[in-house]
Amino acid sequence: MSELPFREAARATADLVADYLAAVPKGPVWQPMEPAARARLLDAPLPRTGRPLAELLAGIATEVMPAPMGNGHPRFFGWVNSAPAPAGVLASLAAAAMNPSSAGGDHADVHLERAVVRWIAELVGFPHSPGAGLLTSGTSMATIVCLAAARGRAAARVGHDVRAEGLSGLPPLVGYVSGETHSCVRKAAELLGLGSRQLRVVEADAEGRLDVAALRAAVAQDRAAGRLPFLVAASAGTVNTGAVDRFEPIADLCAEQGLWLHIDGAYGAFGVLDPVIAHRFAGLERADSLALDPHKWLGVPVDCGCALVRDAGQLRETFSLVPSYLRDEEAGGLGWFSEYGTEQTRPFRSLKVWATIAHRGRDGLAADIAHCTELARRLGELVEADPGLELLAPVATSIVAFRARPAELSPSELNALNQALPLAVQRRGQAFVTGTVLGGREALRACLLNATTTESDLMLLLDEVRAAAAELTGRQDLV
Amino acid sequence: MSELPFREAARATADLVADYLAAVPKGPVWQPMEPAARARLLDAPLPRTGRPLAELLAGIATEVMPAPMGNGHPRFFGWVNSAPAPAGVLASLAAAAMNPSSAGGDHADVHLERAVVRWIAELVGFPHSPGAGLLTSGTSMATIVCLAAARGRAAARVGHDVRAEGLSGLPPLVGYVSGETHSCVRKAAELLGLGSRQLRVVEADAEGRLDVAALRAAVAQDRAAGRLPFLVAASAGTVNTGAVDRFEPIADLCAEQGLWLHIDGAYGAFGVLDPVIAHRFAGLERADSLALDPHKWLGVPVDCGCALVRDAGQLRETFSLVPSYLRDEEAGGLGWFSEYGTEQTRPFRSLKVWATIAHRGRDGLAADIAHCTELARRLGELVEADPGLELLAPVATSIVAFRARPAELSPSELNALNQALPLAVQRRGQAFVTGTVLGGREALRACLLNATTTESDLMLLLDEVRAAAAELTGRQDLV
Ligand SMILES: Cc1ncc(COP(=O)(O)O)c(C=O)c1O
Ligand SMILES: Cc1ncc(COP(=O)(O)O)c(C=O)c1O
Repeated sequence: MSELPFREAARATADLVADYLAAVPKGPVWQPMEPAARARLLDAPLPRTGRPLAELLAGIATEVMPAPMGNGHPRFFGWVNSAPAPAGVLASLAAAAMNPSSAGGDHADVHLERAVVRWIAELVGFPHSPGAGLLTSGTSMATIVCLAAARGRAAARVGHDVRAEGLSGLPPLVGYVSGETHSCVRKAAELLGLGSRQLRVVEADAEGRLDVAALRAAVAQDRAAGRLPFLVAASAGTVNTGAVDRFEPIADLCAEQGLWLHIDGAYGAFGVLDPVIAHRFAGLERADSLALDPHKWLGVPVDCGCALVRDAGQLRETFSLVPSYLRDEEAGGLGWFSEYGTEQTRPFRSLKVWATIAHRGRDGLAADIAHCTELARRLGELVEADPGLELLAPVATSIVAFRARPAELSPSELNALNQALPLAVQRRGQAFVTGTVLGGREALRACLLNATTTESDLMLLLDEVRAAAAELTGRQDLV
Repeated sequence: MSELPFREAARATADLVADYLAAVPKGPVWQPMEPAARARLLDAPLPRTGRPLAELLAGIATEVMPAPMGNGHPRFFGWVNSAPAPAGVLASLAAAAMNPSSAGGDHADVHLERAVVRWIAELVGFPHSPGAGLLTSGTSMATIVCLAAARGRAAARVGHDVRAEGLSGLPPLVGYVSGETHSCVRKAAELLGLGSRQLRVVEADAEGRLDVAALRAAVAQDRAAGRLPFLVAASAGTVNTGAVDRFEPIADLCAEQGLWLHIDGAYGAFGVLDPVIAHRFAGLERADSLALDPHKWLGVPVDCGCALVRDAGQLRETFSLVPSYLRDEEAGGLGWFSEYGTEQTRPFRSLKVWATIAHRGRDGLAADIAHCTELARRLGELVEADPGLELLAPVATSIVAFRARPAELSPSELNALNQALPLAVQRRGQAFVTGTVLGGREALRACLLNATTTESDLMLLLDEVRAAAAELTGRQDLV
């Protein structure tokens, strides 16, 4: 690589990206790809000879950037995918150029990761001591990391070394979730060899929160049957409605029963930064582990999750392959991050977290988040004010679950309509919502994560839902 | 974000990164951090208010970039960490700005991932059909993905649904590795609940390759004891010496015994691109699964691993939470990448893979890799030509394992010296090697991954080893 062409290509990429980001709010949110454009990507043959950087950039500009997912747009309300924080975007370039492995050692990235993990804990008010957390590729991986620690503690309590012996020979370890718990908990239970049938799905209350009395009864029943209850997975913001479980009584029960309390804060944990809804998160700090996603509400570019545990020893005990008598030789006694999780080579995720948080500061992030929850409550009001729409759950954080409810449709017609609506809205290109099912009813859900979204974007979203409903039903009275 | 400051900041980042990369070869490879500099990172308080992008860039320039890991330098020979490919660096910026989740859907990143997974398979000559692979954060995660599939197949053969039921109630599933197998296989076995004691460590031959007769005997012994042999994990380039297992006889045994053959090609699989050593990889294409790392020899910026499986159905069967009767509704029948592995939100890794491969082309990559293996053989010759050094393993790929062997030292003195040497060399700042233990002997190992490394860098490396040995022993005759 000679220096000059790289510098020029880097500047050209900077301009390309600046152009791209400036154009995003002006274009459609998302559009299905043309079959030919899709095929050019899918079927591209392995190139035999190389191409100069400038040509590659042209390829990105013409073949890739025109087909985004849409989550950079202020009217993208789908799933839980945010727009990238500008500081995080720039940090990603610097991180890729430095290209360290944050497995461990004495270089900036490793020390910065220790700092930002502490920052994340401090942002959400989770107790933290050095070694009690690490960055992961997302909450799915953070959940695997946390549940592996929980599994190890539970096995150790019955005298079983699960790392050496495996699960063969242990009675089933049982975990508890609600019907609103994210599927990553099930995925983790399967991966860890616990089995999804050992996850009891406890009832949720009318607000989508784990029913503590039902939880207590389920634990008692499993104990009576000789199984080993070991885990409760609660939610700090469910993906469907943004509901936050009541952590205090759950933590009381876990303490009493010796269960590991894991909280999935992937989407919602940073909501605690908004004073208006902070009270919902009371007791979060009592969890044994917390998984959360800087790549969601903070806007850190994907990927970046974080696993935090209460007891700093748990992660290293679960993952380290360094014999314990050798561990203290390492700098600061903390050793390598690769001893704390699943990854050996680890990317420099901390730089984009550092840049994103430092660019806005705690106060700026809190204001951005408060803006989103306020918009979500406003959207809830707008839905309730329209007799052709129905709010399906209280707005607890920044997710609004609702449906179209035109007069004179039967329940099954309503379900058919609302099942078809998300894609119909998406294809129109003006707003992006996704769907879900709540208590048997097909629903739309809008997730507010973007601080540049305005109230007029909400109006436009509802107009688009009405227009798509009119399109689907052929009823012009719905527009 | 107003547009102008972002564009300026992006250009400034481009220049910062160009300056950084241009300076790397001229500076020290690595230096221990000053305690004060380390503390500024480690102890940085969570900022209350935000800072402009320009200030953040200054912070990166003064606090972060001066403390790299060293792997960008042509005289970094440690572990298996490469310099970042320039095209991959630039692609990382574009990927962060677009910020999709490659979980699934109809956007460029998803289709591009299908293409580059196919390219990777084609590069190493592994059979590939759509759905038979995905990008991961590295080989550690790819190994977890592949071994989960192996576990599921083995359990299904005895009528057990491991996803639903877990491992409780199954006899131990036994896997086979050699003493040279990377520890990520053990980590995967522990995570999956199989237990590290269920990994048999089979002898390696004099060249560090799995002994197939010993493997056969171990399988027979486990069957006789009522255990369930299910997996052989072979290596396409061990981390210590770069040895490549003999895949043909291992694949024959696996076929005969119904065992899943997993090959760890993290470091070495792309070595097959060099015609001089390609013969060593014969039979690679017979594996049931292959894990390999574009973020190693290809220089794709960290993180990027890849899991490939022979039978395209295996991954989805292992990970999908979509009921099978719903799966075919999805575009192209392949569904979402999140059904094929552990991650839900997934970063846009494919763009940096695409850019890295397209920039060099297959031929350019093959030339780069051939340059490395040639240098490694040359380094082996230089070591053998010096009576004060000893080559400890044949140079099979691009790793050279050797030690200092000054006259008149006892075996334990030799071990003490060679154990101290890596850090002593590293601290001198001119070259970076790491250490290992081979058959009880402390060793240095140099891993050649950088196509800009020259023969004079090798001379300098050996001079540094001699100088560090002189320093440690006080013997000037060693220089
Ligand atoms: C509540 C909740 N938990 C967990 C996850 C999974 O997190 P990730 O996609 O980062 O793996 C999500 C993703 O949307 C989520 O919303
Ligand atoms: C032979 C081998 N296998 C597996 C790994 C683990 O790969 P990763 O660090 O990408 O998880 C390494 C890493 O150095 C390796 O050299």
